[in-house]
Amino acid sequence: MTARRGRRERQAAGRDAAAAAPQPQPRLPFAPVPAVSADELEAIHLASLGILEEIGMDVLDAEARDILRAAGARVDPASPRVRLDRGVVEAAIGKAPRSFRLHARNPGRTVEIGGDAVAFGSVASAPNVADRARGRRPGNRADFDDLLRLVQALPVVHVVAGYPVEPADLHASIRHLDALYDMLTLTDKPIHAYSLGRQRILDGIEMARIARGIDREALGREPSLFTIINTSSPLRLDEPMCIGVVEMARANQVVCVTPFTLAGAMAPVTVAGAATQQNAEALLGLVLAQAARPGSPFVYGGFTSNVDMKSGAPAFGTPEYMKAALLGGQLARRYGLPYRSSNACAANTLDAQAAYESVFSLWGAIMGGANLLMHGAGWMEGGLQASFEKMILDADLLGMVAEFLRPLGTAPEDLAIDAIREVGPGGHFFGCAHTQARYRTAFFAPMVSDWRNHEAWREAGAPDAHDATARIWREKLDAYAEPPMDPAIREELAAFVARRKAEGGVKTDF
Amino acid sequence: MTARRGRRERQAAGRDAAAAAPQPQPRLPFAPVPAVSADELEAIHLASLGILEEIGMDVLDAEARDILRAAGARVDPASPRVRLDRGVVEAAIGKAPRSFRLHARNPGRTVEIGGDAVAFGSVASAPNVADRARGRRPGNRADFDDLLRLVQALPVVHVVAGYPVEPADLHASIRHLDALYDMLTLTDKPIHAYSLGRQRILDGIEMARIARGIDREALGREPSLFTIINTSSPLRLDEPMCIGVVEMARANQVVCVTPFTLAGAMAPVTVAGAATQQNAEALLGLVLAQAARPGSPFVYGGFTSNVDMKSGAPAFGTPEYMKAALLGGQLARRYGLPYRSSNACAANTLDAQAAYESVFSLWGAIMGGANLLMHGAGWMEGGLQASFEKMILDADLLGMVAEFLRPLGTAPEDLAIDAIREVGPGGHFFGCAHTQARYRTAFFAPMVSDWRNHEAWREAGAPDAHDATARIWREKLDAYAEPPMDPAIREELAAFVARRKAEGGVKTDF
Repeated sequence: MTARRGRRERQAAGRDAAAAAPQPQPRLPFAPVPAVSADELEAIHLASLGILEEIGMDVLDAEARDILRAAGARVDPASPRVRLDRGVVEAAIGKAPRSFRLHARNPGRTVEIGGDAVAFGSVASAPNVADRARGRRPGNRADFDDLLRLVQALPVVHVVAGYPVEPADLHASIRHLDALYDMLTLTDKPIHAYSLGRQRILDGIEMARIARGIDREALGREPSLFTIINTSSPLRLDEPMCIGVVEMARANQVVCVTPFTLAGAMAPVTVAGAATQQNAEALLGLVLAQAARPGSPFVYGGFTSNVDMKSGAPAFGTPEYMKAALLGGQLARRYGLPYRSSNACAANTLDAQAAYESVFSLWGAIMGGANLLMHGAGWMEGGLQASFEKMILDADLLGMVAEFLRPLGTAPEDLAIDAIREVGPGGHFFGCAHTQARYRTAFFAPMVSDWRNHEAWREAGAPDAHDATARIWREKLDAYAEPPMDPAIREELAAFVARRKAEGGVKTDF
Repeated sequence: MTARRGRRERQAAGRDAAAAAPQPQPRLPFAPVPAVSADELEAIHLASLGILEEIGMDVLDAEARDILRAAGARVDPASPRVRLDRGVVEAAIGKAPRSFRLHARNPGRTVEIGGDAVAFGSVASAPNVADRARGRRPGNRADFDDLLRLVQALPVVHVVAGYPVEPADLHASIRHLDALYDMLTLTDKPIHAYSLGRQRILDGIEMARIARGIDREALGREPSLFTIINTSSPLRLDEPMCIGVVEMARANQVVCVTPFTLAGAMAPVTVAGAATQQNAEALLGLVLAQAARPGSPFVYGGFTSNVDMKSGAPAFGTPEYMKAALLGGQLARRYGLPYRSSNACAANTLDAQAAYESVFSLWGAIMGGANLLMHGAGWMEGGLQASFEKMILDADLLGMVAEFLRPLGTAPEDLAIDAIREVGPGGHFFGCAHTQARYRTAFFAPMVSDWRNHEAWREAGAPDAHDATARIWREKLDAYAEPPMDPAIREELAAFVARRKAEGGVKTDF
C-alpha cells in the first residue's frame, strides 16, 4: 500500500479533480407515493401517541429524563420509564426545520437535507470488509481509508455516512480520533460521528468545527456533523444515544433518530405494527432533541424491515421493507421532517440478489420521498459487510436513480418534430443532425452495465457484473486524488488528535 | 426427455394443483406517477397529432388504407402514406374500453386488462434459449414446451405472452399450429398469437375459440386472444401487422400496438421525442383498430428505450427507459386505454446487471401504471434469449412486486398495540401471541433469496442466485402437472391442427 500511496500523492498534485467534481443533488420531481390513506396514517399517528402516553419508553440516561421531565414528560421515580402525554409530543412537532444544509469542509460539497432534495450516503458501520480478490476480513484502518478514498472518488455519493467499515485495529479509546481525522482529510464531504458516549461526540463536533475553519458560534448556525441515533427497540433509548441526542442538539448539529424495528423480532410481526412502534420511538427522540434545543435539525429515520420467519435472520429489500419505506416517508412528512431511508440488502455476494434487494430498497426509499439515503453505496450482508465491489455497483445504481429523477426536457427541440420530419417513415436517426448534436451526452453511461452482444461478450471471456465491479474499484482507487486542505487547518486537526490521544482518548470498557 | 415426461404424466393425476392455483391479479393501490406535467403531456399529445397530420405514416396494406380512408384519413394515391387530421384521431379516442377481460380456457385464469389491474406475461419471441447447464442454443420445440410448462407452474405469471422461444425446428408453414396447440394444452392461461399474415392470425382466433369451447358469437363477446402489433418505427406499419390489427379487431380480440421506438436509432435521441413518435404510431394503430370495429379492446403499448450511443446496441432498464415507461402510462391514461410495459434487460448472464435492469424496468412499469407487463419472466439479452434461470428470478421479482402492491393492513390488530404492551420496553416479539398467530404467512417467502449468515452460506458452498435459480427451475418443471382439458375439446383442437396441416398450413417465403 505504501508504494501505491506514494504514487497517488505524486499524482494528486497534477491531476484535475474532474472525477471528484461535486454532483448536484437529485430533486424529487414527483409527489412521494403514499403507503396508506390519510385516515390510516392518522390511525398510526394516534396509536404511536397512545404508546408513548400509556406504555412509555425506557430512557436510560438520567439527564435525558430530566430534560424530558422539564418538557412535560411523566417520569417514573423508580425506573427509567418515561411517558409522554400527547400534548407533549404535539408541542415538539413543527419546531425542527423542514429542510436545512449539512455543511461540508468543502463548501461545494454542502448538501441540503429535506424538502425535495435527496442526499446519498456511503455504507456505514460494517464490522467486516470484503473484496473479491482478498476475501472477507475484519474491519481495519487500511481498508477504512481505501473505502473513504473510493467514497471521495464517486461523485454520486454525497455524504460520508459513518465508518464505512469499523477500523477495529485502532484501540477503542482513540479510534474515533483517528477515524474522524481520516474522514475529514481523505474526503471533503459532510460527515457523521457516532454517539458512543459524551466525550466521543464532543470530540466529533470539535473536529468538524476545526475542519471547517469556523468558530463555535458559526458552527451553531451551520450544522456540520450528523449522528444516527438507533433506539434499542422495543421502546428503549440507551445512555450513549440519549447523550448523543442531547449534545448534538445543543450544538445545533443534526440528529437522525432511526429505530431498528425488525418486524417479528424487535417489533410486531405486521408492517403497520412495526411502523407504529418505529413512529413512537422516533417521536420520543424528536421530543428529546427539541427539548434540548428547540429548532435543532432533526431527521426522521425509518429502518423497518422483516425477518426471515424460518431462521430469524433479518431480511432487506423485501416487499415488506418497501411498504415500510413508503410509510416512513409518509409519517415524516406528517411531522414536517426530513426523511432518512437506506439502500439495504442481505446478500452474501455480488449476485442478482444483491442487486434486486438494493434496487427494491431504492424503489421504496425514493418513491417514499427519502431525503437522506444511508448505506447508499457498499452495504452487504444486512450491514455485516462493506464491499468494494458493491460500492461500485451501488454508485452506478445511485447514478441511474439520479438520472431517473432528472426531469425530462419537453421543449420543442426535445419533442424533435423537425428530426422526425427529416428522417421520415422508414428511415433511421443515427445520422441526423438532432442526434449528432446530442448523442455524446444524451443518455446516462453506466460504469458496470455490459451491453455487448452475446458473441462479443463471450469472446471477451463472459465477464459478469462482479468482474466489472472488481476491475472498476481498483481503477477508481488508483485515480483518487486527496482533496486539498488548508495546511493550518490540517495542522490544527492533527494537533487536536495528538492532544486528545495524550489525554488518553476516552475511557473504554475494554 | 421422454422418460421425464412419462413420469410427469404419472404424477399429474395424483398431484393437487396447488402450485398452479390461480393467483389473484395485483391491483395498483396508488395513483401512477407522472413523468411530466399536464401541460407537457398535452404538448406531447399535440405534437403527435401534428406528426400524423403533417408527416403521416406509411401503411403498407391496401385494405388497411381503405379502412383508414373511410375513417377520414387522407391517403396518398401514389404511395402508402396516410395522414390523419386531428379530428380523425380524436374521434377514435374514447371508443375502446378502459378495461376488459382477456379470457383463458380455464375461467379461473381469465385476467382483467386495464383499470387498476396488473397482469404479468411471460417472455415472448426470443430466438435463443439458454440454461446454465446446457448453454445457449437456437429455439426449438422441446425447450418451447418446457418453458410453457414452467410458465404454467409459476402462479404469478398470468398470461402466456407469446412464444417463450421461437420453436424454429417447426417449419414456418405449420409452426403456429403446433405452437398454439402446445400453448393451449400445456397451459390454461390466456394466450397471444402473432400477426404474421392473415391465415395465421385467423387460425389463432379459431384455435382460441375451440379451446374455450364457445361459438364465434360468444368469442365476439369475450376476447380470448391478444396480439402484439409492432410498428416498423419510424412511422411505418407493415402489411402483416396491418392485417393483424384489422382481423383481430373485427373478431373483437385484443390488439396491443407497441411501437419499437429506440431513442437514437428508430426514434429521436431524446426521450420526449421518442415518446412523441411512439404516441403518433400508437394512435394510428388505435384509429385503424377502432375503424375496423369500434369498441374493440385495445392496449396502448410503450417500449421506448435508448441505445448505447457508443455501439448502437439497445439498452433496457436504463433511467431513460424508466422515464419513458412513466410517460407511456401517462399517455395511455390520457386516452383512457390500458397500458402495456415490459420487464426488460440487456444482460448476457444472470448477474447483478440482469437483476438491476429488470427491477428498474419493473419500477418504471409499475409506478407508470402498467396493466399488462410483457416479458415479465425469462427475458434476457434485449430479447434475444429466453432463460430458464431468469424465468425463476423474474417470477420471484414479480411475486415481490405483487406483495408490494398488496395494501397494508391497518386494523387495530395490525397496529398491534396489545402486542407492544405485552412485550414492553426491552423485550422481543418472537414468542408473543400476536407473532405466533401470524408468523407463517406474515411475509413474502421468496424462492431465490438466500438469507443465511455468511458462515452458513459459505459452508453450503457459497451459492449465488444463479445457482439457486438453476436448481429451482428443474424442481418446478419436475412438479409440473398438465392442466386438465375436456377430451372432446382436445380432439377438436388436434383435428383442426391436422386439417390445417393437410391443407399445407400457410404459404411461406422460405
